[in-house]
Amino acid sequence: MKYLHTMVRVSDLEKSLDFYCKKLGLKEIQRREIEQGRFTLVFLAVEGDEDAQVELTYNWDPEEYDEGRNFGHLAYAVDDIYATCQQLMDAGVTINRPPRDGRMAFIRSPDNISIELLQSGQTLEPEEPWSSMANSGTW
Amino acid sequence: MKYLHTMVRVSDLEKSLDFYCKKLGLKEIQRREIEQGRFTLVFLAVEGDEDAQVELTYNWDPEEYDEGRNFGHLAYAVDDIYATCQQLMDAGVTINRPPRDGRMAFIRSPDNISIELLQSGQTLEPEEPWSSMANSGTW
Repeated sequence: MKYLHTMVRVSDLEKSLDFYCKKLGLKEIQRREIEQGRFTLVFLAVEGDEDAQVELTYNWDPEEYDEGRNFGHLAYAVDDIYATCQQLMDAGVTINRPPRDGRMAFIRSPDNISIELLQSGQTLEPEEPWSSMANSGTW
Repeated sequence: MKYLHTMVRVSDLEKSLDFYCKKLGLKEIQRREIEQGRFTLVFLAVEGDEDAQVELTYNWDPEEYDEGRNFGHLAYAVDDIYATCQQLMDAGVTINRPPRDGRMAFIRSPDNISIELLQSGQTLEPEEPWSSMANSGTW
C-alpha cells in the first residue's frame, strides 16, 4: 500500500492554482479534463517530492464548498518559516496563525482548506514582526 | 518544502485506530499526548512509506465532527483492490463504492473521512461479487 494524495474540491481553478502553485509553491504534475463527468483533476506536489500529491477537483458546474470539522489540514515543512510567511503575505495571503513561536503557521486556501507550515528542523529564534503578530480568523 | 501529513479529527481514538491501523493497515509512527491542550496526536503511515503521514487529532473534551465538501478524500494505492476490499468487508467495513471496474473503491472512516483505494498499475479484470455490487451511501 502507498499513500497517493489528498483530494480537495476547488470552486475556482484559476484562483486555486494561483494559491497552491504561485503563492504556496507547489508544482502542477498532471491535469486530466474529464469531459463526460464535467470535471477537471489537477495533481500538485512539491518539486522533488512528487510522491505525495494534492489532487484538486474542479467541477465545471458550480457547487458550494462548505468546510467540516472532521478534516483538519494539510501540513508542509518549510526551510525558513519567516521567509515563507513573508512571501505569502507579500502575495496577499493572510497568515491566520503567524509563526510567533518560530515554528508553526497556518494559512487557508481560497476554499478554506487549512494549511499548516512547520519549520524544518530546529525552531527559529523569535523575531519581529512575527512575535507580536495577532491571529486572524480561524484555521 | 516537503509534504508532511494530512490531519483529521477523530471523536473516538480507539475506534479510529481500529479502523486506520487494524482494518486499513496503517502503522502508528508516533504518539504525543498534550496534557496542557487536552489532546492526543497520533501519526500514522503505510509501512515503508513513513514520509506521508495521516495525523489523527483526538480532543479529550468531546466535539462534534461534521463533514464539509471542500475536503474530498485520502487516497492510497493497493496491490490487489479485490483482496483489500474483501479484508475490509470481513472486518466489517462498508465498501461504499465497490471496485466494479477493478480499479477504484471508496470507504469511510468512523468520522466520515472518505478514503479512496486505487489499484496499483494495471486495472484488474472485472470479477464477481464486485462487478455487480451496488453502491452504499455516499463517499
